[in-house]
Amino acid sequence: MKKFMDRDFLLSTETARRLYHEAAALQPIFDYHCHLSPKEIAENRRYNNLAEVWLGGDHYKWRAMRANGVDERLITGDADPYDKFLAWAETVPRLPGNPLYHWTHLELQRYFDIHTPLDAGSAPEIWREANDILENAAEFSPLRILRKFNVYAVGTTDDPVDSLEYHESIAKEANKEAAIATKVLPSFRPDKALEIAEPGFAAYTAELGRIAGKPVNSLKSMLAALAARIDYFDEHGCLASDHALEYAPFEAASNGSTEADWEKETAAVFDKVMSGDNVNPREVELYKTYTLCFLAGEYKKHGWAMQLHLSALRSINSDALKRLGPNTGFDVLHDHPVAAKLARLLNEMNRRGGLPKTILYSLNPKDYYPLATIMGSFQSEIPGKMQFGSAWWFLDSRDGMEFQIRTLANVGLLSRFVGMLTDSRSFLSYPRHEYFRRILCNLVGGWVESGEFPYDWEFLSGLVNDISFGNAKTYFEGGNGL
Amino acid sequence: MKKFMDRDFLLSTETARRLYHEAAALQPIFDYHCHLSPKEIAENRRYNNLAEVWLGGDHYKWRAMRANGVDERLITGDADPYDKFLAWAETVPRLPGNPLYHWTHLELQRYFDIHTPLDAGSAPEIWREANDILENAAEFSPLRILRKFNVYAVGTTDDPVDSLEYHESIAKEANKEAAIATKVLPSFRPDKALEIAEPGFAAYTAELGRIAGKPVNSLKSMLAALAARIDYFDEHGCLASDHALEYAPFEAASNGSTEADWEKETAAVFDKVMSGDNVNPREVELYKTYTLCFLAGEYKKHGWAMQLHLSALRSINSDALKRLGPNTGFDVLHDHPVAAKLARLLNEMNRRGGLPKTILYSLNPKDYYPLATIMGSFQSEIPGKMQFGSAWWFLDSRDGMEFQIRTLANVGLLSRFVGMLTDSRSFLSYPRHEYFRRILCNLVGGWVESGEFPYDWEFLSGLVNDISFGNAKTYFEGGNGL
Amino acid sequence: MKKFMDRDFLLSTETARRLYHEAAALQPIFDYHCHLSPKEIAENRRYNNLAEVWLGGDHYKWRAMRANGVDERLITGDADPYDKFLAWAETVPRLPGNPLYHWTHLELQRYFDIHTPLDAGSAPEIWREANDILENAAEFSPLRILRKFNVYAVGTTDDPVDSLEYHESIAKEANKEAAIATKVLPSFRPDKALEIAEPGFAAYTAELGRIAGKPVNSLKSMLAALAARIDYFDEHGCLASDHALEYAPFEAASNGSTEADWEKETAAVFDKVMSGDNVNPREVELYKTYTLCFLAGEYKKHGWAMQLHLSALRSINSDALKRLGPNTGFDVLHDHPVAAKLARLLNEMNRRGGLPKTILYSLNPKDYYPLATIMGSFQSEIPGKMQFGSAWWFLDSRDGMEFQIRTLANVGLLSRFVGMLTDSRSFLSYPRHEYFRRILCNLVGGWVESGEFPYDWEFLSGLVNDISFGNAKTYFEGGNGL
Repeated sequence: MKKFMDRDFLLSTETARRLYHEAAALQPIFDYHCHLSPKEIAENRRYNNLAEVWLGGDHYKWRAMRANGVDERLITGDADPYDKFLAWAETVPRLPGNPLYHWTHLELQRYFDIHTPLDAGSAPEIWREANDILENAAEFSPLRILRKFNVYAVGTTDDPVDSLEYHESIAKEANKEAAIATKVLPSFRPDKALEIAEPGFAAYTAELGRIAGKPVNSLKSMLAALAARIDYFDEHGCLASDHALEYAPFEAASNGSTEADWEKETAAVFDKVMSGDNVNPREVELYKTYTLCFLAGEYKKHGWAMQLHLSALRSINSDALKRLGPNTGFDVLHDHPVAAKLARLLNEMNRRGGLPKTILYSLNPKDYYPLATIMGSFQSEIPGKMQFGSAWWFLDSRDGMEFQIRTLANVGLLSRFVGMLTDSRSFLSYPRHEYFRRILCNLVGGWVESGEFPYDWEFLSGLVNDISFGNAKTYFEGGNGL
Repeated sequence: MKKFMDRDFLLSTETARRLYHEAAALQPIFDYHCHLSPKEIAENRRYNNLAEVWLGGDHYKWRAMRANGVDERLITGDADPYDKFLAWAETVPRLPGNPLYHWTHLELQRYFDIHTPLDAGSAPEIWREANDILENAAEFSPLRILRKFNVYAVGTTDDPVDSLEYHESIAKEANKEAAIATKVLPSFRPDKALEIAEPGFAAYTAELGRIAGKPVNSLKSMLAALAARIDYFDEHGCLASDHALEYAPFEAASNGSTEADWEKETAAVFDKVMSGDNVNPREVELYKTYTLCFLAGEYKKHGWAMQLHLSALRSINSDALKRLGPNTGFDVLHDHPVAAKLARLLNEMNRRGGLPKTILYSLNPKDYYPLATIMGSFQSEIPGKMQFGSAWWFLDSRDGMEFQIRTLANVGLLSRFVGMLTDSRSFLSYPRHEYFRRILCNLVGGWVESGEFPYDWEFLSGLVNDISFGNAKTYFEGGNGL
Repeated sequence: MKKFMDRDFLLSTETARRLYHEAAALQPIFDYHCHLSPKEIAENRRYNNLAEVWLGGDHYKWRAMRANGVDERLITGDADPYDKFLAWAETVPRLPGNPLYHWTHLELQRYFDIHTPLDAGSAPEIWREANDILENAAEFSPLRILRKFNVYAVGTTDDPVDSLEYHESIAKEANKEAAIATKVLPSFRPDKALEIAEPGFAAYTAELGRIAGKPVNSLKSMLAALAARIDYFDEHGCLASDHALEYAPFEAASNGSTEADWEKETAAVFDKVMSGDNVNPREVELYKTYTLCFLAGEYKKHGWAMQLHLSALRSINSDALKRLGPNTGFDVLHDHPVAAKLARLLNEMNRRGGLPKTILYSLNPKDYYPLATIMGSFQSEIPGKMQFGSAWWFLDSRDGMEFQIRTLANVGLLSRFVGMLTDSRSFLSYPRHEYFRRILCNLVGGWVESGEFPYDWEFLSGLVNDISFGNAKTYFEGGNGL
């Protein structure tokens, strides 16, 4: 029996162990998509206790506690932090086979040097030990964590209307005294600019116009404002955009197929919304298609990567939405067909201005083979231009990652994969890169040990190093070139 | 090479073996969903030969024989029982990798102490040996089987119009002399009350009205009759309902969104059907949505669990349907998208009267991640209130069960799983619980041996005991409380 | 560590090794569906160099090179053959986990006796060695290859309007001097006769009428011409048809449900097209449904097998289509629901004239369970009449084949499986049969070694021999009988 989560956790062959310990583990982290708060980095936020840093905002844990029958007061309510922590500690052993189980113990090990399994019995001691460390800023703070985990760069997730003031202040600090070695780069996420049928859309366009310095009152001025913000983000080091889409839209103009027809009809939809009229689903999709194609062209111009996150169905529990708001653990996998529209959307982008570097994610494993083959049909110009993104959210598990890696390997070039990202709101999530790298090394090591791939240390270590870090660095920092 | 299907069948690690033999195997069975005949239990039915008890009504075996080119006369026809048995014996070795192969040999081992692989050569001897045992009521009868397999409770599947007379007589016997230790409980399956567009609907409502003691001539009286039968079933120990749905319906009222609009429009659909008019698919779905929501509220009141079986497409071979009738082996997996409507249906139930304990099954593995995340978005009140049901029918195989267990583990709490059910029409199916438990113990044991979960015997044995029996007992007998 | 791709490649148990080396490996090949050119066989074509024979027309390799950032000139352009080969050699090590990696090395081993991994370093030497062999007709030519790989029969893919002159000349040679031992049989692929809305349809019907000797100007004459060509193909040894369908169509007549209504409405659609009018999607589907049902009846009459290839979405990159044409590496998995219409289509065929032997393929793994259960619902008459086809195209990988085999085993009779086909345009693809057989033997051997299936050499060797060759021979050559 292997020891519980020891040095060789998940590494079942000698080659896997060597690949991990002598190669992958030594690489920096390029966390190109996450939801960390730049404000918390800029201010080097402190935490009062383990419950705050560990359970605050973590809807993965909240879902697990709800499934364990924990009262909502102990989850998102006003209960005592220690009681919340205890409710979590009681839930943890109930999670065999769940990535939360491994994340929890990797986090205890790496951040707090605690190697005891967490449960109701060990909870009091762990609470004490962890809080001791949390109290000591020299040991525990965002900046300390970024350094400790060798984080080369972080891509935050930001609205076009964001001032990026915290990114600016972080960058200034970096220039002044290199206190912050990690690059903290904004990412452009214009979801609100796409959701034309949402009640807040008009207010949003007003805000966008204000910050872009030119009023938004037409499709043309809308796109101009977005372009201005893209320039602004680019000046602040942005390397990527991101879109959360329930499904990939594709709707062409009904009265013709020329560029002018398309623009005219889309402009009419925009005007309709601005004058307070309702738009139907086809009109919404027409607007999204047109605007996404425009944005893709802008991303391409700036050498950015475009990330599309597909197939999440959000806030399905309306009672919970009312009580707790969005992003509190009530989202699920959507299961619409995606291939036809996604193929047409990417083709249209490609046909117009040229497709930017693109990363396709889906929340639904049934989309993996379609996505991996679709992205493979637009490869050109630079190695791995089109990427099939790492297993996302509910699939960010050992099974999910292995399926994503195997799918990519089967129909694409695993060697060009830009690898892992945390997609997390928490500074405690960096061990997810370790988890991914262990799984990757175990898979590759297994192929080698079973005679399916040759043992060539230089090549193999380069392969896992690239997927752990090198590919992402080249991909995001390389613009449109090699 | 391991011996063929010996004591350690499917148990590949020491921990797996210990977990199975010292824990899971010792647990009683709570077979909460099956199609056993209460009449056959009440009358302690006898069988004339192995063909009758083994091949009669078993459409899994019939499909396998048809794929093997066996003439229908030897499958469902009037051939000699021994010839039918022989046709099956010749088919069995042709089934490597099929759960029927393992079921067959587990059944020969556990019911008849026969350990020879079945094929054409061994068939005559096995026929003789098994029939010897079948002739001996002390060794082979429904009651003897229920006792032998330590069956704590059985949930049969019953129509609302069923008198439950056999359940009554079984219960009386139980009270009189404890001859029947197993609880034989009805389950409420009102499929016919939902299928408003089926030709027999009007006749069914008449029958329902008769047995409920109040004529059914409106939506209101229909729902009242169903509620009365729910009370009646509850008095007879019913703990669960069950619905077979091609897909999860969701259709709201078109002329408003108030409860009154919804009821009014649904009532009009009902009246239309009762007056002999055709209804369109939207109207059917409106009726199903409304009625299911009503029923969910009633189930909740009684502390029942609601089971939804999704994504079966039935009787696709119309020639076979005409010749052999339904449930004869011509059903398949459906593959519609399910997420959006299922999410809205459960949300509506939750919004109205509160969602009952719910178990979601699908016949299609593509639905597993959507289902497991959807049920996870309605967890509250009691541990494991929402359940992702065990691998069903065509997926009731080693691969299917492992995928179901891993999916649940990845996005939910495996530890709260209510586990296995036979869903079978046969008294010979109890080894399917053994099959499930071996697979479960092998999986958990594997995690422990590879250092992915700590070795803590008390916890681990409790875990597999809970999933084998304890969780189901608490879940079904616990009403709405803990 | 096992040696790289040695004699026991992919064979991880003793039983697997024995099954492969002493049984499966010794079987002939029945490559019942491929895209080899009968002309190249008849003329025993020669190749100038390794690039021509290996990279020409192979869009799998082209996709991999594009993903590796290789310039299109080195892929499909006018670059020097050696430079193209070098671009491929540099891409190969970048493909861990991709079947191309294994195919490449199996091909180097089996055709050229080269056992060095291909990469930029080994490329010059491998280029030299392989070209030496290519120059020697005694060692390398289509006929030599067919003999070397013990190819019993090849099913090419041919349009109904094809004269089959090369099949004729091959057959004559065979009769004269047995120089060609391999049967080279045409397969009937009438895709163009189904695509009524394509621009070339009218021209195609004219050509069909000419070759069939009766003008095509109505549905009736169209079907008669197709029937005549079926007779012609049958005289030339055809044993199977093939259809590439984006999805399984099913659309019934709107104005009634009798055979006459159906024919009348379909005939009107045909007339509409012939008079140059546009048809809508429903009309296209009506025509396809009717014509497919007619063709199925004809196939049945001739004892042919009908192959349906579903769920490919083709040429999604319009820019690439314009530059490079179809079948150049821009096709993907489609992901529509398939169950309902496929079930109705097969049922309708069955209801009308009786379903021919049928093989169902899908490009999308989500369709595997639906397909395998649907085909299982039409089994009758002969063993394995309905087949779930081997993993196709993007799924023709180790993972894909294992999933296909396991799905079939779980819900059907693996033992009746007709097994592997190359579906390839290249004479270098025969090792794919080896790849398949190793995977099959490894799976079956694993079941035996873990005690899940009995060790009975005679039975087991027969099983893998049947799936490797015997089943296909019986299936295709056996007409409608056993």
